[in-house]
Amino acid sequence: MIRNSTSDIEDLIALMAKLPGLGPRSARRAVLHLIRKRALLLTPLADVMTEVAATARECLNCGNIGTREICPLCTDPERANGELCVVEDVADLWAMERALVFKGRYHVLGGTLSALDAVGPEDLRIPRLVDRVATEGVSEVILALNATIDGQTTAHYIADQLQGQVRLTSLAQGVPIGGELDYLDDGTISAALRARKEI
Amino acid sequence: MIRNSTSDIEDLIALMAKLPGLGPRSARRAVLHLIRKRALLLTPLADVMTEVAATARECLNCGNIGTREICPLCTDPERANGELCVVEDVADLWAMERALVFKGRYHVLGGTLSALDAVGPEDLRIPRLVDRVATEGVSEVILALNATIDGQTTAHYIADQLQGQVRLTSLAQGVPIGGELDYLDDGTISAALRARKEI
Ligand SMILES: [Zn+2]
Ligand SMILES: [Zn+2]
Repeated sequence: MIRNSTSDIEDLIALMAKLPGLGPRSARRAVLHLIRKRALLLTPLADVMTEVAATARECLNCGNIGTREICPLCTDPERANGELCVVEDVADLWAMERALVFKGRYHVLGGTLSALDAVGPEDLRIPRLVDRVATEGVSEVILALNATIDGQTTAHYIADQLQGQVRLTSLAQGVPIGGELDYLDDGTISAALRARKEI
Repeated sequence: MIRNSTSDIEDLIALMAKLPGLGPRSARRAVLHLIRKRALLLTPLADVMTEVAATARECLNCGNIGTREICPLCTDPERANGELCVVEDVADLWAMERALVFKGRYHVLGGTLSALDAVGPEDLRIPRLVDRVATEGVSEVILALNATIDGQTTAHYIADQLQGQVRLTSLAQGVPIGGELDYLDDGTISAALRARKEI
């Protein structure tokens, strides 16, 4: 529809408008900004996107996104095997890491159970979690799921699966009702983790 | 700072966060979305960015962005040479085009005069505008500049330069005071152009 522009620029605007947080107008602004900052922004962005498109993959062990079969968080010898923090998605893992308070391992479910969307345990990384608890010497599973209905349903389901095998904790109250980890400031996450409670 | 991520993914987040309209948090969300939609979004975006980085350029005649020395708007035989619409930047040209009401040629200044930022006529495409008016058989110059102080200062300066050589008009009242073209709906722009007045 932007008749003055070439097809490539139109395509770029249309693709940028598909990003969460950008609409058509902000996509147009972003594309003009990219073209103005070609050497500083557009070319480096094109290069790193090409690289990430070729190399990004989910860690076979924990579901984190990285570039190797097994991610650095799973292989880092400095981190404790005994504590396993279960999160819904990679954004939540990043939020936990920014809080700089957890030094164990992670397990990324890849979503939550949802009757409405027909997401069952086999659609998430729950069987793999049960496996890891049985084989990795895990002594505590911290269920750091969002305080949403689906998040809490998922936490209860996982607690049922692991009951008796391991210490089960969840983040302390402090995570607001209906709140999502990735929206919280680092201090709130730190405080909630430090005050975590038995389930 | 995202210690779990690989350097490429961190770089991608840092570059995305430099786009207008995206902060660090929305950049992280956008990058996860891109990786999830690798075939549909990330790879096509990387490809078209590479293409645009290699080919995008300013039209030597009017300042529009395209991929040729002279842009399609300047060469389109369907458009009238007699009317020349002067805009501040390419986003404003796109906004005019979306209104589907102007069928003449454009001239993109590349900004506005600004004492504060030390932007003078020679920093904009104003000498080239005076040239075009003298040589292209222009009978009317429509000053479609933003209704800001710098926009109106620039309009007055250009009007002084061209006084007596050509019919000079500006967009009708209807553009809100302090408003920018690119924020207006298409209907408002159409109405303001149709009701344009002599300066
Ligand atoms: Zn991993
Ligand atoms: Zn042109």
